[in-house]
Order: sequence, then C-alpha cells, then structure tokens
Amino acid sequence: MTRGNTVTDAAPCALAVDIGGTKLAAALVGADGEVLRRAETPTPPAPAGQGALVAGALVELAVRVAGPARPAAVGIACAGPLDLAAGTASPVNIPAWRAFPLRDALATAFPDAACVLVGDAIAAAVGEYWRGAGQDARSLLGIVVSTGIGGGFVLDGRAFAGPTGNAGHIGHVPTDLEPVPCACGATGCVEALASGPSMVRWATAQGWRATRPGAQADAKALAEDARGGHAVALAAFDRAADALACGIVSAAALADLDLVVVGGGVAAAGPVLFEPLRAHIERRASLDFVRRVRAVPGVLGRDAGLIGAARCALLAEAPVSVHVASPA
Amino acid sequence: MTRGNTVTDAAPCALAVDIGGTKLAAALVGADGEVLRRAETPTPPAPAGQGALVAGALVELAVRVAGPARPAAVGIACAGPLDLAAGTASPVNIPAWRAFPLRDALATAFPDAACVLVGDAIAAAVGEYWRGAGQDARSLLGIVVSTGIGGGFVLDGRAFAGPTGNAGHIGHVPTDLEPVPCACGATGCVEALASGPSMVRWATAQGWRATRPGAQADAKALAEDARGGHAVALAAFDRAADALACGIVSAAALADLDLVVVGGGVAAAGPVLFEPLRAHIERRASLDFVRRVRAVPGVLGRDAGLIGAARCALLAEAPVSVHVASPA
Repeated sequence: MTRGNTVTDAAPCALAVDIGGTKLAAALVGADGEVLRRAETPTPPAPAGQGALVAGALVELAVRVAGPARPAAVGIACAGPLDLAAGTASPVNIPAWRAFPLRDALATAFPDAACVLVGDAIAAAVGEYWRGAGQDARSLLGIVVSTGIGGGFVLDGRAFAGPTGNAGHIGHVPTDLEPVPCACGATGCVEALASGPSMVRWATAQGWRATRPGAQADAKALAEDARGGHAVALAAFDRAADALACGIVSAAALADLDLVVVGGGVAAAGPVLFEPLRAHIERRASLDFVRRVRAVPGVLGRDAGLIGAARCALLAEAPVSVHVASPA
Repeated sequence: MTRGNTVTDAAPCALAVDIGGTKLAAALVGADGEVLRRAETPTPPAPAGQGALVAGALVELAVRVAGPARPAAVGIACAGPLDLAAGTASPVNIPAWRAFPLRDALATAFPDAACVLVGDAIAAAVGEYWRGAGQDARSLLGIVVSTGIGGGFVLDGRAFAGPTGNAGHIGHVPTDLEPVPCACGATGCVEALASGPSMVRWATAQGWRATRPGAQADAKALAEDARGGHAVALAAFDRAADALACGIVSAAALADLDLVVVGGGVAAAGPVLFEPLRAHIERRASLDFVRRVRAVPGVLGRDAGLIGAARCALLAEAPVSVHVASPA
C-alpha cells in the first residue's frame, strides 16, 4: 500500500469490491487484470434498517484500497438478488440491505468513476473467462459451490445477466435425484443436493462424524474425510457431483457450453468432487455438442469475482442494460 | 405469383427456406416481415448419397418463389444438426444429407444474395420475437413440440445459437419424471416424455385408442380426444405438460426468461396443453424471477421459421459467427 508504485500514474485501473454475507473484499485491478492491491474485512453484522453500517465498512475498505489511485471505474460484485436497473441490492445473507442503493453508495465515494453493479457469480464467471480457467472458451458457465450454489454465463464472449440480472441460477435447476426440499420452496434443486450444507446434512444423516478430533462437521471436514477414503464422505461427494452433473447437462443442452468452471469452497475439495463430476457428466450427456462440455476448477480462487467485476467496470458494462440486438 | 407486384421493385426483401423431413417451404419476405409469396412441396424421399435430389427440389422451389424478385439475402432454416461454420446440414430426418453443403447450394442459385444458415427452431424463435407472440419480450425461448422437441433462444434481443449452433435444445434437458429412454441415448429427457410420439406411446400403453372412427392413433387424434374429455388423453397431455414445465423452469432459472413461445403440431392442441402447462410451471417455479416466465402459443404457425430465417438473413447475421464481446 505504498505510494509511488505503478498504480498512481499508471494506465486505467479499476477498483473492484466483492460483497458477501461473511466478508467484504476490495482490490485495485489493472487494465490487464492484475490485482495490484487487495484487502478484505468481515461483513459487519447489522440488523434490518442499519444498512449504512455495512455500507460504511465497505466504502472505508474501498477508499483504503484505492489509496492515491484514481480508478476510472468501480466494479461492484454482490450477492443477490440485485436490481441492476435501480442499482440496489438485497442479499439474502445481509438482512440490513433490502433494496439498498449500493451503486449510489460507491458512486458518492468515487464520483469520477463509472460504477457498475453485477451479480457475484456472474462477476466470477467473467473473471475466469478473462484471466482464469476460461480464456479459451466462447461460452462458459461459472459455478460457485459454497453454502449456496450460484452461477453466471459468459455467452459468445459476453456476460449474460438476463433481463432481471438473475441468469445462470444453476442452483435452482431441477434434478432427477431425490426430491429434497430446497430453501427456494421447490424440491430436488441442484442446491438442495450439492451445496456444502446439503452435503453435510446428508452425510450426517448417514452417520458421518468429522474424523479429525475437534473438527467441525462442515464441508471442509467432509472433504478431508473423503480424501482419506471415508465411505460416507465419498458417497456424499458422489451424490453432490451427480446433482451438479444433472444441472450442467441441462445448461449445456440449453446454452451449448464449451466449459464449466467450478469454484467456491466446496470445489476446493479437488478430485473427490471433480472425478465423480466428470464421470456423471460423461454418463448423462448423450448428444455430441453436450458431451464436449468440460468441467474444470477455477484458478482465480477468491479473486475471481473481483477481477470479473473490474473487467465489467472497465468495459463500463452493466451486463443487463446493454442491448446487443443487431441494428435493424 | 404474378409479376409487377410490390415485390420486384420494392425495398430489400429476403427469400427464406425452411427445410424439414416431410416438407420444404419457401417464402419471399419483406423487410417488415410480411410474407409476400409462399409455397411448399413434400421433401423428396432420397437415399444416402442422393442429396442432390433434395437440393434440386429445394432450389427449384426457391427460384420459383423468388420469381422476378432479386432478394438481398437468403435465409435458410434447417433441421439439425448443422455446422454453421461450414454451412452444412445433416438433418436426422433427411438421410440423404450428411454434412451436405446447403449454404453453397443456395449461394450458387442466388449469387448476389447473402446466404445465412440457421437452425429451424432458432429461426422460429426469431420469427415469433420479431413479428409474433414475442414482440414484447427481451429474452425468450421458442419451443417447437412436434415429432421431436426443438428450441431456440432470443436473449437480450439477439438470436443465441451457441458455438456449435445447438443452443436451445430443451428437448434433451433432463426432467424429474420417469426415466423413459430417449432417442438421444439418455433417459427422462423432455422429448422422451412430451413429444407427440412419446405422448401417443404412453396413452396407447394406458389403453387409449383413437375415438373417431378411422382416425390414426397420432398426436392429433389424442388432442381431439383430450378436448372431448377422454381421461387417458387428458392424462397424456398433463404428463407431457409436466415434463415441458420442468424443462421450462430449468431454462428460466438459467436464462432469466420473460417468455416461452410454444409452437409445433402438438402445441396446436390448445388449452388441453397450455392449461396444465401453466399449472405445472406455477407449481414448480419458486424464485420470483423464474415465476415471471409466461408460456404462450406461437401465433405465426408454420411461417415462424420462414419469417425468422428472413430476419436473420436481412441482418446478414449467422447467429453463431457474430462475436459480440464488448471491445476491450
């Protein structure tokens, strides 16, 4: 965070923020996608009505990371639901924000910068497409498997957010597995079977307890035990992989995908997820154009959303509001 | 087909052809989407290796419909699979064409026109978007329910064909219904449950026989009986509608759709399909942005593909080859 580095007088750079229920992250990102500076802070707990508390922490972090730089653009990746037209956010995990004017909060702090709001999963997909595992793809779906399951498309080289900004919601695609009740109200959704908590719930019901003394019974411990060969933990990953594969095959049949990039905490489990995932895709996919889809881990980790938000901002592109119909 | 009408000296018009396993259709379409002239002919049966027979009939029909007009563009809607980059077609129902150079065949006959090849279901979706039931939508899926089930997207006002030209294949999205074997090799696909022949197979297995004397046991007779209150026929439509609804909810969660336009022979059944379809979507869709999707019948009938192909041609736009990434 020293002055006088390449940041202050350099080519256009963007400030990116990534807002989730547990942490706020910010980064200064160069025009080539390099993360020049980065910091994060826990999301302050705040009750309904106290949205300014969270916004204050976010702006403080953003200003600190920007330092002396004058970012040309601010990219704001945020958990949904969002209203991209209004620039507001109502993240499920941040009860203090309901239709919170997030874009305005950043625009006030950075009045000279173009501020662009984008869903966090779409931002992550754009990041991996631009500088990560998806650089060779034309059409990809980025999936974030964590406490929930989010997703975002880059189609024909362009972030596709849809009219309401919610495109890519693979977590709520129906599967042909057990009709497990989902938080959304439906049953058998990908998320109801493949999110971290769903996996842990199922494994626990099958008698799994974290092997390592003192370990919490969470997705990380489940992955640890799966890597150690624990039968129930392996079965939990296989079942989650099957549900993910079902959703991926649906998405590939509909969107003619080259690639699926899977990130998030659960994806960090590695081969215990990706090996059964590829096997289930192979078994389920039948048509040639569906069979060509590859599933790979993300390579940008927790920076994917920041880098993607920076990209969207540098393009001054709020995906939902850019109408790309060909000229008549 | 008289000379001297508004066609010959009018504003730019397009010639459109729509190629299926049973019929070839051609139309001269004005810049505003009006069908100025139209004709069709049965697809000549031709064995493998005799592709020129089919192409000859197609070109003869196209030249006849064009008459004295000099179309600025030729739009070619064809059943898949296609290779849009190569301009070739290998329609499942036309065994004489395997990697047949379809675009070149039309380009030879119309050397001054831009020739654009597009999947028939995508063409139908574009037609309904441009001049039919989808004019108010930003993102729609057109579905053709017939002997098979095809689909095509218009996303953010633009035909989305995907890298291989196969996007929109809702017929091969998995459902959570019975794992009925599908022609594609997978099980439980939308098409395996909701195509005309699938519905007839199921109804027949439940004891249904066409009520009207002399009627063939086909989807049309099944619709007739459903409208007459036949319990098994009604159950067959309900089951097909449930499978379609499952695929539509998947597509809406992924693509954030405003609208689904359902056309094709089975859709002509009317309320016996659309009433259970809407009820199953309502029951299955949970998230607000998914619940907003509406399912409506197409209004252009068998002209949808011709009008859409003309539109694509007038835009000189082969959907798959236009890279719409924002400038870096």
